[in-house]
Amino acid sequence: MGADLSPSGDGATVRRVGAPGPVIDALERRFDETVGELVSLARIPGVSAPGFAAVELERSADAVAALLERTGLEHIEVLRVADAHPYVLGEWRHAGPDAPTVLVYAHHDVQPPGRAERWETPAFEPTLRSDGRLYGRGVVDDKAGILLHAAALRAWLDAEDRLPVNVKVIVEGEEEIGSLHLGAFLRAYRERLRCDALVLSDTANLATGLPCITTSLRGIVNVDVSVRALDHPIHSGMWGGPVPDAATALGVLLGRLVDAQGRIRVPGLEDDVAPLDAAERAELARLPFDAAAFRREAGMQPGAAFSGDGAFGVYERIWHRPALAVIGLEGMPLAGAANQLVAEAKARVSVRVAPGQDAERVRDRLLAFLRSDPPLGVRVDAQAIAAVPGWKTRAQGPAFDAARRALAAGFGCDAVAIGCGGTIPFVKPFVEELSGIPALLLGLEDPPCNAHGENESLDLADFRRAARASAHLFHELRSVAPRS
Amino acid sequence: MGADLSPSGDGATVRRVGAPGPVIDALERRFDETVGELVSLARIPGVSAPGFAAVELERSADAVAALLERTGLEHIEVLRVADAHPYVLGEWRHAGPDAPTVLVYAHHDVQPPGRAERWETPAFEPTLRSDGRLYGRGVVDDKAGILLHAAALRAWLDAEDRLPVNVKVIVEGEEEIGSLHLGAFLRAYRERLRCDALVLSDTANLATGLPCITTSLRGIVNVDVSVRALDHPIHSGMWGGPVPDAATALGVLLGRLVDAQGRIRVPGLEDDVAPLDAAERAELARLPFDAAAFRREAGMQPGAAFSGDGAFGVYERIWHRPALAVIGLEGMPLAGAANQLVAEAKARVSVRVAPGQDAERVRDRLLAFLRSDPPLGVRVDAQAIAAVPGWKTRAQGPAFDAARRALAAGFGCDAVAIGCGGTIPFVKPFVEELSGIPALLLGLEDPPCNAHGENESLDLADFRRAARASAHLFHELRSVAPRS
Repeated sequence: MGADLSPSGDGATVRRVGAPGPVIDALERRFDETVGELVSLARIPGVSAPGFAAVELERSADAVAALLERTGLEHIEVLRVADAHPYVLGEWRHAGPDAPTVLVYAHHDVQPPGRAERWETPAFEPTLRSDGRLYGRGVVDDKAGILLHAAALRAWLDAEDRLPVNVKVIVEGEEEIGSLHLGAFLRAYRERLRCDALVLSDTANLATGLPCITTSLRGIVNVDVSVRALDHPIHSGMWGGPVPDAATALGVLLGRLVDAQGRIRVPGLEDDVAPLDAAERAELARLPFDAAAFRREAGMQPGAAFSGDGAFGVYERIWHRPALAVIGLEGMPLAGAANQLVAEAKARVSVRVAPGQDAERVRDRLLAFLRSDPPLGVRVDAQAIAAVPGWKTRAQGPAFDAARRALAAGFGCDAVAIGCGGTIPFVKPFVEELSGIPALLLGLEDPPCNAHGENESLDLADFRRAARASAHLFHELRSVAPRS
Repeated sequence: MGADLSPSGDGATVRRVGAPGPVIDALERRFDETVGELVSLARIPGVSAPGFAAVELERSADAVAALLERTGLEHIEVLRVADAHPYVLGEWRHAGPDAPTVLVYAHHDVQPPGRAERWETPAFEPTLRSDGRLYGRGVVDDKAGILLHAAALRAWLDAEDRLPVNVKVIVEGEEEIGSLHLGAFLRAYRERLRCDALVLSDTANLATGLPCITTSLRGIVNVDVSVRALDHPIHSGMWGGPVPDAATALGVLLGRLVDAQGRIRVPGLEDDVAPLDAAERAELARLPFDAAAFRREAGMQPGAAFSGDGAFGVYERIWHRPALAVIGLEGMPLAGAANQLVAEAKARVSVRVAPGQDAERVRDRLLAFLRSDPPLGVRVDAQAIAAVPGWKTRAQGPAFDAARRALAAGFGCDAVAIGCGGTIPFVKPFVEELSGIPALLLGLEDPPCNAHGENESLDLADFRRAARASAHLFHELRSVAPRS
């Protein structure tokens, strides 16, 4: 491996591994340029959610294609499947048949910006603040996940005129809406996507500066519930009492989903959750957990208790148990409430599905429960808009060993294995399509980053560490044997 | 009384009572002009709710003052108390000390227009449609209630150059927000408001063309509930499970208020509801009730059951029992839901209080229940924004007899006594301030009128009948003895 011991860039003493010095020098030399490219990419409001301009995803895909071209990749293509938002592909195939092929995955679409008035600086004008963080929609989720690997690859080509492994880069355009066309995409491009390991950086670190390897993901089931009681709003005095209304009925319906502690009450929804084994529990127990910091970073209210089933620890509840939340709620805005009975009210009920659970079974249980007994005799329509399973792996084998070495070299401290409560739809079907290749989910989102929320941000010091780790990783992954 | 029998304007044979023929002729001659004045008044968007331009209430008050002046009233004044929206007063005092003084009450403020896209014609561009109805915000509630009496008074002064009774007209500017400054207003203008009977037309008729005298009103208690779980929205995957969210917690909270049939579950909220006596029950049972028409006019969904306590009939539930409804609900609009936990969610809970109930007791019971056990440990703030008691009278004595004669003459059929599920804050304190004067609440709002809702409308034939009844009423009320 050529590893030795020397001071890392952060001053800690770790094994000197990975990329040659000139590669790291090249990365550092162009780091400011890399940040500038991130800012340019994050200026494009490529929101994949319905109701936002799809043309921005075309602009975003074109910008990613140009970036990959500047990086030195070849065979750049903007790929389309059905009416999916565009994927971007780039490749570098000259490491030879004895070298493995590494596929880097990222996504160029972003979440809606949320409420403009809550952004301290505009969502699509990325701004560096004095805390060393870059603020803007998508800066960490997941445009940094594109840039950090692109920067590492460019540093290799700058310094060595070659890459140590064969590389494919695939950048999706609809991850934030559940990768709707992923199945069709994988079927259409199976051969071009063939590889020996998957790498992505769309996951979290437990703390700023602490590199983490994510070994499980939760899935997601989203259901939209619409309650209709009346054709139109009517006077609450003239009719109230015998006439049902939609907002009260929706309250009754949602009130059935969890108990007062937040434990799920939907029958059967948790039946197929696999319990953790002793080794997994012991691993969780070893992880640092600072309850006060956790509460502060989540923005919980003073005195508020943790919700959910107290039989499970906080990490287990986030990573290995399903969680149910009402993530959308609309009836009549209070400013417009004119002493009328509400005719129609809506909610989006979201379940984060535990790794190993059958997402479609969870979806069906939730739909059945919502539809089973309409309160006040109103009309309840419930429709699933997403059902994505979770994923789980063991952090074993040459690829994970390579990742641990590269992260230690890039961050200056040892990586830990964690779970992730979020969902990356691409991972499970892609890994399964390629017969179980190792998937390296390397963290970038630190606790204060507020991905999906207003004032999303990226710690630039971690961005630099992650880019360095990527440069090392391409070197270390030479130890993965190419498949026949 | 000078009553005899002759065909009424509607062709039915009723006792010929009330105003001399030339008064009715004068009313008819200028009826189109009256409709035009109603249209002009309803063009002014005088919404008293917070967030709307208060200057429109000034415009509206000025327009009402000009109308009363044109009517022939005297001592026109725009009255202000503290920072209340303006009241308008007019008088005519020349009927002599032996004639009673009648106070006509109406209000010139209107409810917010609601959702613009639901109006088939613009809310503040009153439009006559081929169904014989005038559509616009406030056309029936309560600008017609101003115009119909003004038209009757003008007809008297046109034809006879005198009124049969002394008249005061008071037009309030904040009825739709609970008459916030009513107490101060009554204290400040007690002497000027002194009268022998109160007349208003801000109430309902059971059917188009069927005149009704309302003998009870419900009160109203409105409470705004705000649930805060988080400082800001956070990623539902990264945090969901141990971290409580506001929308789910609000669902649990609202789900406690009523059971699945819509029966109130707030402890003690119905304890002080006086049961109806046998005579009152018998009176209700005699009223026409067409369940299919009721459901259609309310806009209930096919197959939906009546909500609330089945031990009570529909009229009893609307008029004599409290009703609880969530009339405002806001969390995260589904279009903006970005797989995040909702930080804050709000609801407005409204109770229509039964006549005779202590509104402040109902308010306190509701507040205590909402605050008692915050679900998921979130922060719950509940604040009352209105607590107005109901009112009830017996339809007995010379004033009610006069009203029955006038309504029969104006509408061509006998009036019935009904309750009203809505609230008119002015009535109870005003009547009490004047030691129990008779209060004549004469209907104008028919079932399809959709007061408070979008596409509010006024049946012009009923408007004409009600104006005629008003002209007769001033004549008939001569039988009320003036107080010493």
